Amino acid sequence: MKDTNTLFQHGTLALLVPGLLTGTIKIADFLKHGDTGIGTGEGLDGELIILDGVAYQIDGDGNVNELGDDFTVPFGNMHFADYKPFKSVDNLDLAGMPEAVLGAKSLANAFFSIKLTGEFKTMKTRSVFKQSKPYPTLAECSDKQHVFDGENKKGTVLSYFSPQLFNGAAVGGFHSHFLADDKSQGGHILDFTGFTGKIELQVFSNLDQQLPIDNAEYMDHDFSKDDIEGAIEHAE
Amino acid sequence: MKDTNTLFQHGTLALLVPGLLTGTIKIADFLKHGDTGIGTGEGLDGELIILDGVAYQIDGDGNVNELGDDFTVPFGNMHFADYKPFKSVDNLDLAGMPEAVLGAKSLANAFFSIKLTGEFKTMKTRSVFKQSKPYPTLAECSDKQHVFDGENKKGTVLSYFSPQLFNGAAVGGFHSHFLADDKSQGGHILDFTGFTGKIELQVFSNLDQQLPIDNAEYMDHDFSKDDIEGAIEHAE
Repeated sequence: MKDTNTLFQHGTLALLVPGLLTGTIKIADFLKHGDTGIGTGEGLDGELIILDGVAYQIDGDGNVNELGDDFTVPFGNMHFADYKPFKSVDNLDLAGMPEAVLGAKSLANAFFSIKLTGEFKTMKTRSVFKQSKPYPTLAECSDKQHVFDGENKKGTVLSYFSPQLFNGAAVGGFHSHFLADDKSQGGHILDFTGFTGKIELQVFSNLDQQLPIDNAEYMDHDFSKDDIEGAIEHAE
Repeated sequence: MKDTNTLFQHGTLALLVPGLLTGTIKIADFLKHGDTGIGTGEGLDGELIILDGVAYQIDGDGNVNELGDDFTVPFGNMHFADYKPFKSVDNLDLAGMPEAVLGAKSLANAFFSIKLTGEFKTMKTRSVFKQSKPYPTLAECSDKQHVFDGENKKGTVLSYFSPQLFNGAAVGGFHSHFLADDKSQGGHILDFTGFTGKIELQVFSNLDQQLPIDNAEYMDHDFSKDDIEGAIEHAE
């Protein structure tokens, strides 16, 4: 039976900070934990969004590619979709999204996902080209990001919210990716304005946090020397 | 099939800090997630240790009681035991335990459990009487702890290690409870000296973090005002 109460997370945000970018789960195995998700590829090879069981990559050029089973992921979230209607909104900007959700319901201490479907007046996304070994740090990568600007885009925003207590393991607050219905744009969301459409909500009771314990680079790394919060603030 | 790769955690250490001490999982449900574990009762009603599927409470007087199915827990860890031999030690003190384990193997970035069985020259444990509503904070409770000193105690130390990244959600580092073979002593370990016996190890790939999302006090609480790290340092 599909467990719709659990958010699966492979890897942690913190391991991206020092550049531990080796893919440690294959898409085929990642998809065993859900049909809906976000993530990045090995070497930060693009931004991923998984909708209805199909895994898409938005690569450094902004192309939207369907991913094969053997593509690997260092960090990502996945769950089995069971969204409930939450609210309809008119002309919502990204800056107003937290208040639109958290102001309506006490959710700041839970893991949850929201899905926005409708039209966005402007949509600003980013992606990154695959990096080579020795991998750069997250801060170095985000300085090399490619930004894509869209107007009047119909599509889906898939967003995960993690309680601030878990910042570093997860992205504290909202972490949102986009895919246009016509596949003309996607990626990690930097900003959007003028969203009109519906917001759906799925609240999780459990986080299934998987760590890449068979990866020696991960197990041997000394995280105490990394400025995890600072790097995350810079990159997200 | 029993999943021996997953450490289950109900609640977070952080919710104890402001005194969110309502029991939000029954022992009967907690035991569905394993046969081995530690925790505390509603209102910090003693220190718990679960061995071979039996849940014991060390109450504020130091008595060891078997718990019924309806006893409730605000925070605890549980897993299905599948320990592997790790090392035999002679005359080990608690202060030397981290080096004895982490110095032998790269484990600081994983969740794992160790089980020490043998004899302890001295064993210092603590427990707390059940607190009443309005519940005190964790710092106030630990000032009221009862300390028990044992000598030449045969028994079991059950310890969970969580990566520092998860401090606040879990207890970063080691979190250890004790039960004497003859049930003459138990509780949360403050110190031990002169342990001679065997250490067994079980490493987890996954943390199944369950949050009490049906508890309104938890969901409505503003954790941003709590000094979580300071209170944990004081209490643990």
